[in-house]
Amino acid sequence: MATQRLIEYDDAAPEVRAVYDDILTTRKTDYINNFWKALANDPATLKRTWESIKQIMAPGALDPLTKEMLYVAVSVTNQCPYCIASHIASARSKGMSGEMFHELMAVVGMANETNRLAAGYQVEIDERFKAT
Amino acid sequence: MATQRLIEYDDAAPEVRAVYDDILTTRKTDYINNFWKALANDPATLKRTWESIKQIMAPGALDPLTKEMLYVAVSVTNQCPYCIASHIASARSKGMSGEMFHELMAVVGMANETNRLAAGYQVEIDERFKAT
Amino acid sequence: MATQRLIEYDDAAPEVRAVYDDILTTRKTDYINNFWKALANDPATLKRTWESIKQIMAPGALDPLTKEMLYVAVSVTNQCPYCIASHIASARSKGMSGEMFHELMAVVGMANETNRLAAGYQVEIDERFKAT
Amino acid sequence: MATQRLIEYDDAAPEVRAVYDDILTTRKTDYINNFWKALANDPATLKRTWESIKQIMAPGALDPLTKEMLYVAVSVTNQCPYCIASHIASARSKGMSGEMFHELMAVVGMANETNRLAAGYQVEIDERFKAT
Amino acid sequence: MATQRLIEYDDAAPEVRAVYDDILTTRKTDYINNFWKALANDPATLKRTWESIKQIMAPGALDPLTKEMLYVAVSVTNQCPYCIASHIASARSKGMSGEMFHELMAVVGMANETNRLAAGYQVEIDERFKAT
Amino acid sequence: MATQRLIEYDDAAPEVRAVYDDILTTRKTDYINNFWKALANDPATLKRTWESIKQIMAPGALDPLTKEMLYVAVSVTNQCPYCIASHIASARSKGMSGEMFHELMAVVGMANETNRLAAGYQVEIDERFKAT
Repeated sequence: MATQRLIEYDDAAPEVRAVYDDILTTRKTDYINNFWKALANDPATLKRTWESIKQIMAPGALDPLTKEMLYVAVSVTNQCPYCIASHIASARSKGMSGEMFHELMAVVGMANETNRLAAGYQVEIDERFKAT
Repeated sequence: MATQRLIEYDDAAPEVRAVYDDILTTRKTDYINNFWKALANDPATLKRTWESIKQIMAPGALDPLTKEMLYVAVSVTNQCPYCIASHIASARSKGMSGEMFHELMAVVGMANETNRLAAGYQVEIDERFKAT
Repeated sequence: MATQRLIEYDDAAPEVRAVYDDILTTRKTDYINNFWKALANDPATLKRTWESIKQIMAPGALDPLTKEMLYVAVSVTNQCPYCIASHIASARSKGMSGEMFHELMAVVGMANETNRLAAGYQVEIDERFKAT
Repeated sequence: MATQRLIEYDDAAPEVRAVYDDILTTRKTDYINNFWKALANDPATLKRTWESIKQIMAPGALDPLTKEMLYVAVSVTNQCPYCIASHIASARSKGMSGEMFHELMAVVGMANETNRLAAGYQVEIDERFKAT
Repeated sequence: MATQRLIEYDDAAPEVRAVYDDILTTRKTDYINNFWKALANDPATLKRTWESIKQIMAPGALDPLTKEMLYVAVSVTNQCPYCIASHIASARSKGMSGEMFHELMAVVGMANETNRLAAGYQVEIDERFKAT
Repeated sequence: MATQRLIEYDDAAPEVRAVYDDILTTRKTDYINNFWKALANDPATLKRTWESIKQIMAPGALDPLTKEMLYVAVSVTNQCPYCIASHIASARSKGMSGEMFHELMAVVGMANETNRLAAGYQVEIDERFKAT
């Protein structure tokens, strides 16, 4: 049962090809990542995921580079090798410099450390930080 | 053994007070978070953690607001309630608008979703994304 | 110190062989996974883990396929490549179709997303959902 | 900046009310969870999340109760208190018995244990379990 | 459906009472933790979990205090408030001093930081560290 | 942009070499791990991380072997392959026997299991375990 093989453009059903075309146009590229080629085994998830990402990663109150670095921060925290590699590449293509990458890593590392110090010392939320 | 009580400024030993003073000056505030008051039970960790954070969160290739939002992204991914509350407050004080917050949450949610899709579909890293 | 080499049936001590035999009989297979061959370096953990799994994964109020898919859901969430590969294979051998796999992935992805939205928006538990 | 307050039906803008109405109809209930009321602060995320969940959680190759238990498995693994409480309630309303709940918990616990044993013993993926 | 209420000694069925008695004797205490009282809703899981813990946490090549501190390290990393509170209490009762607690926290925080630096910098495993 | 290549001693800038020298001296070794060679792309993070680790991992109320095993426990929980491999090697060089390794793994596995049982059963913290 080949549910995880990569589906190439030429082998893709029309509904998958439509998503691939939209990715190529939106991202101004001629390359489809393995991630999409794997999701293409389930056209419904391919389409839903692409449309969500397209909406979420578009320029808004946050610029696309900032969003891409947030993606890297989550991927590194979760120890997802594919996501780390692909989103670092993506952030670079959007302008992340070497220095920005180093600062990003430093913040992610530190946040993971203090997240555990706060938990281990069982620190109560300050009144002024409470949501309501 | 009260290793997790909060140590107030007036009760603090000189080495702890020195860190508190540096926090108050650097952050231009008159408030010490519970996090620091809890760490103060271990002056070595208080000092090391503060100095690392001071260095890492300073303006650089990334601005302080971007760094603070990265901190929120990690804290939300890790499900750390104290860190979520305090770093959202901090990001707001540095200029995060409601819209920026919503976009930040949308990216963090999506990244956590696709991190699992990449893992579950066992996607191989594209040649072009490899680190070396 | 070879504490992590794989211990083959022919090289196994009697207490390890007894567990291997029970695995082969219970699962009606002639194959021992690398996981068990690695655990066999510590016969006490091999035996305890196998007996727990045998008890937990047996048919009960939940059928074995459902249990296997729950195992996949946890393994994907934790980003454990070995566990993802072996439990997907196992779920397939118990009848998971391609469509079921895709739906499983979609649920796991979505749950990981909304877990972070709930945390980031600091949503209070509804009165009616409280445990007591 | 009240970006995390709960938005009640009577205070909701028309686009939010449209989603609430669809939730009430689809789920045959008269209750909107706090989760949706919090997301309603960002109508775009509310709508996208609801539509994704509606599509993913609908009956398919997997029945709604199985999907709900997968949701619980992920939420427990991630230590998300809101999600644990609300999805256990949801699974019960779809027919999860006490025994099913206990077996679900046993599988989730065990999977989290063996995920770490596989990682710690650095077990290589068996040839026969490889995706391709 | 009260599957999560706490089952007190006096209300417990004989098989649950037998486990409680073994806990009280083994731990030389007159107190049963809420954790066990909750698990008692599923006597099979109560018994299996207690017997595993009894075997694993007994003195061996590692002493009980070291084992308890390892438990705290995992619980803090996973952000499990119940587990953090109960295992810190347990470690203290076995002799963990304030200084030991502080060093434990420092190591756990640092390990969580460097785990992400290693992932984010995509560091390849040194030949000499490979398992085989 | 080669921000993740490994920087060898002979190619290192003076500030990096100074850290390498301190690592070699402090650890009484002639080998620099890939981790440090990767961090060397960002001399500020290299220096800060090394100095923190040097301080934290030094003998104190906890001995270096115990600290190293705590590091392994966190790395296994986080599914970080590099960290698992390098810290197991490090623990062995500090005296971890095969038996100690097996017990360490058993505790880490069990803690990850009961962390989820506590979360899934939504167990309230016992009064006597509360931090304050």
